[in-house]
Amino acid sequence: MNRNEIDENLKWDLSLIYKSNEDFYLDFNKVKENISLIPSFKEKFLDNAETFLEFMKLIEDTCRKLEKMYQYTHLAVDVEPENNEIQNLYSQVLSLYDDYSQNTVFIDLTISKNPEKAKEVISSDNTKIYSKYINDILRSSSHLASDEVEDVIAKADSILNSPYETYSVFRPEFKPVNINGKEEFLNQETLSEFLKNPDENIRKQAYENLYGEYKKFGNVFASTLSGTIKRDVFYSKVHKFNSPLEASLFSDNVPKELFYKVIDMALNKYHYLLLDYVSLRKKIMNKDKLEIYDMNVPLAKEPDIKYSLNDAFDLIFEATKCFGEDYQKILEKARNERWIDYYTHTGKRQGAYSSGCYDTNPYILMSYLDDVKSIFTLIHELGHSVHSYYSSHNQPYILYDYKIFVAEVASTVNENLLMYTLLEKAKSKEEKAYLLYNQIFENITLIYRQPFFANFENILHEKASNNEGLSNHTITSLYGDLTKEYWGSDVNVTELSNYFCYAVPHFYYNYYVYKYTVGQCVSSVIASRIYNGNTEQKEKYLNFLKSGCTKDPIELLKDAGVNPLDDIIYDEAFKNFEKLLNDFKECL
Amino acid sequence: MNRNEIDENLKWDLSLIYKSNEDFYLDFNKVKENISLIPSFKEKFLDNAETFLEFMKLIEDTCRKLEKMYQYTHLAVDVEPENNEIQNLYSQVLSLYDDYSQNTVFIDLTISKNPEKAKEVISSDNTKIYSKYINDILRSSSHLASDEVEDVIAKADSILNSPYETYSVFRPEFKPVNINGKEEFLNQETLSEFLKNPDENIRKQAYENLYGEYKKFGNVFASTLSGTIKRDVFYSKVHKFNSPLEASLFSDNVPKELFYKVIDMALNKYHYLLLDYVSLRKKIMNKDKLEIYDMNVPLAKEPDIKYSLNDAFDLIFEATKCFGEDYQKILEKARNERWIDYYTHTGKRQGAYSSGCYDTNPYILMSYLDDVKSIFTLIHELGHSVHSYYSSHNQPYILYDYKIFVAEVASTVNENLLMYTLLEKAKSKEEKAYLLYNQIFENITLIYRQPFFANFENILHEKASNNEGLSNHTITSLYGDLTKEYWGSDVNVTELSNYFCYAVPHFYYNYYVYKYTVGQCVSSVIASRIYNGNTEQKEKYLNFLKSGCTKDPIELLKDAGVNPLDDIIYDEAFKNFEKLLNDFKECL
Repeated sequence: MNRNEIDENLKWDLSLIYKSNEDFYLDFNKVKENISLIPSFKEKFLDNAETFLEFMKLIEDTCRKLEKMYQYTHLAVDVEPENNEIQNLYSQVLSLYDDYSQNTVFIDLTISKNPEKAKEVISSDNTKIYSKYINDILRSSSHLASDEVEDVIAKADSILNSPYETYSVFRPEFKPVNINGKEEFLNQETLSEFLKNPDENIRKQAYENLYGEYKKFGNVFASTLSGTIKRDVFYSKVHKFNSPLEASLFSDNVPKELFYKVIDMALNKYHYLLLDYVSLRKKIMNKDKLEIYDMNVPLAKEPDIKYSLNDAFDLIFEATKCFGEDYQKILEKARNERWIDYYTHTGKRQGAYSSGCYDTNPYILMSYLDDVKSIFTLIHELGHSVHSYYSSHNQPYILYDYKIFVAEVASTVNENLLMYTLLEKAKSKEEKAYLLYNQIFENITLIYRQPFFANFENILHEKASNNEGLSNHTITSLYGDLTKEYWGSDVNVTELSNYFCYAVPHFYYNYYVYKYTVGQCVSSVIASRIYNGNTEQKEKYLNFLKSGCTKDPIELLKDAGVNPLDDIIYDEAFKNFEKLLNDFKECL
Repeated sequence: MNRNEIDENLKWDLSLIYKSNEDFYLDFNKVKENISLIPSFKEKFLDNAETFLEFMKLIEDTCRKLEKMYQYTHLAVDVEPENNEIQNLYSQVLSLYDDYSQNTVFIDLTISKNPEKAKEVISSDNTKIYSKYINDILRSSSHLASDEVEDVIAKADSILNSPYETYSVFRPEFKPVNINGKEEFLNQETLSEFLKNPDENIRKQAYENLYGEYKKFGNVFASTLSGTIKRDVFYSKVHKFNSPLEASLFSDNVPKELFYKVIDMALNKYHYLLLDYVSLRKKIMNKDKLEIYDMNVPLAKEPDIKYSLNDAFDLIFEATKCFGEDYQKILEKARNERWIDYYTHTGKRQGAYSSGCYDTNPYILMSYLDDVKSIFTLIHELGHSVHSYYSSHNQPYILYDYKIFVAEVASTVNENLLMYTLLEKAKSKEEKAYLLYNQIFENITLIYRQPFFANFENILHEKASNNEGLSNHTITSLYGDLTKEYWGSDVNVTELSNYFCYAVPHFYYNYYVYKYTVGQCVSSVIASRIYNGNTEQKEKYLNFLKSGCTKDPIELLKDAGVNPLDDIIYDEAFKNFEKLLNDFKECL
């Protein structure tokens, strides 16, 4: 299908951002002018509160317009990649961003070097909203190396990222999967479908063809992965952190206690629930021992139910009724003002996202397929959109943009609520079983698998910190040993699965994955509490959605009633998981 | 064949280094003791000439013993890799080297920071042999960054080398070559055999299967190569050089004028001779246009002549008679004292080398195959061995070890002289043609192909210095354009040959290849002059062989009568090449 064959009402309306290219260029030229004014503030912007405020207004005006132009072009490019006019605008925006960056390098540096002056300028009433911004920079400055060293590191930066760059362009080709004499294309995406196949031989073949290739190039992957881990260690040392873990947690201002708690909960305290799930799978699949390539076979059949977009919105409104009228009005706006691009078509970007900025609506890209999974996707992205809408309408620009660390809360709370609604309305045991199984499977990915990954990447970083070599053998045998512990004795972990670690790009993201677990645990707790009528939790949560980045992520979550440093959050979240398991067993 | 089936006289005699492991351990323990004494000199070794001398004697004793133990073990490991006892000794030596390195980091640093004291200690008669050593360190010190920056770079070093490490472990697998239904193994080594095949289809197949794979992973190779080039640029900037070229030439103290001269001679002034050769090939192969995969087909047939080891030595003695008795006595020693390990056997390392140190003979490893190529290999390695023997017997330890830059002179002078001898004795036109063709082919590799490579790597470095991105497209299209200019209009250069650059490890070696050309030009001139009875040249050359590293490489070559900055050297060398071409034409 081509984009022009789709009903206008089912595509997003970007004319709400700019009515025409003329409007776009008005902003474009204003930004250019603004950027030319920035250098004149270099020596004086910390002189007094007035000058500082004047400068911040200039910066804010520039950034807001840049972000708006970026949204306008990147959204259009994602649905019309062949449109040269838009591509051209998009490139112009990116190069304007570069200009802006080069002209503003001095800001953080000047603030870092003049802490007293910086504290002075934020002490007046009309500048105090910049306190967090300034204090965050000052907090970071204690970890800066000398100017000379920072300059050298900046020069080396792109080389230090080269191992990851190499990894990201290395696309091994896999032997196709032979099904009844027909060769079927195999890659990471199709693998997950093959692994759901009821025929064990097909699963085995797909698994072996794919990871066999990772094994073949094991030395290459060991080299790129160890290069990246060593880069993290290098940066943490140069920036005077005790460990790469502490360095990575610094920007979110998260204590390492939280990181270790997440791992401990999943891999120790509540590990028995994972083993319980494995043993249930063994029973249902009727095997003596499970193979790694058995672990994705669905344990429940998808019922043959189609959901129209109207059905989807009915369910979404029902699931979010608990949030009250105000929340639901935003959902209606999203639908009526055409924030959403529902259907896939030739050339459109795959996947799903919610994306916006301070001066645009938070737009949603997705591909709706009339199935229950699409409704989960839609309510997930709407969760992000409402979070963005609330934050931009309740906070000044400098404090509206929430961090990745808390971003997944709003989206997964919604998913949890949708599940409760669907379970209530389910008309058969089969339907219920299907919903529960999907929820269990997704939960395992978030609350077990990510801590397992986090533990692995942490051990790699520790080894590199101690100057232990990270050879192909060291990396893969560690991964194999941890995999065996993870799945327990019911699963036959063969040598080939040691190479799974090379297929996970997240190990290049410097301690990223544990955040998924925190997000899911917190969301599970918020959703179950609200579903069970806890109005105090509901109010706290709605305030959280409006809070942008006014505080550090952990403080925001504390205010939301879900302190992730408190064991009780995990106790509740894993109990919720246990309930899913038990409910699922009852449906069998 | 196993090693123990080979006659003792045809294997090297390592008992000349150590009679027994007890002897080895005497040195081993002495070195350990020495290393423990080194730190006590840290604060005082530049205090006065006496202390300095005492310290240098300690360092020299340590290094000489370390090198001797290293020779003993690495030579043994290369012929008996399965011998665990030797492997174990070898590991112990390597770890002792590490100890030594860590305990001597202070030496260069202290000298760099105390130039006045350093110059003072070498002003006395019994320390003046250390002048070059000290002055070389002082010359380098002007390019050192601050201590803090050098420390940061040292920490980043292994990450900055990661792109090369990734490249060196990436071994693509190639589709086998199908010859009459039989699949033949293809890799870099077998490719060069396939490319000699008279059947064009086999050559084409091998060529396409191999470079097709490099093309497939083009993005990966672009990433590792550009990472390495950017590393060179980074180091040159941090160490205050005007360009990565100047940085790379610094340690040999070579002006960039030489680098550009080499390129200019091959790719401009004497490029017509290469085109002449191409057109001759076109005529002999009877084609309208040559393909890249035609360029390795032999233009002369190998005559069916076998050469025993005795034949080989007869020819070698005849070829080197011009050097006089003294030189020939060393060759006899090499033969009689069993410096040479002639024949290949199971487990023995492939290839050929000459390797020794100040207190051992220069041993030769090779695999002699009764053909004329083996005699060239033997006389080549003997050239190195005599050079080492002369230098270690005529210079103090600190000045004996010649640089890579001049190393290939002694070996290729010998090859040239052997060729003259063989041509004189050739009994048929066919035999002559075969000798000449091989010489022409090897010359092209050294005096044309390496400047072509050098030019390519220099342009890449320049682009990276100007912050131009080195994408797969940029790299390969540049290589393709240069290839077209190089071979001229008689050769059809297709897109696939653009990817040839990814198969050349030398592009990771930071301006290494131009040295091959200088070595070959200089050798060609020395050999032809000596062959033509120039006794002054002979004397100068024999002195050069005794000069170790008493001066910078260019100064040594000037003294040897072959100043590589002088155009006349290239004029003579390329005229020698022209003569080979003309003589070859006459044999057709």
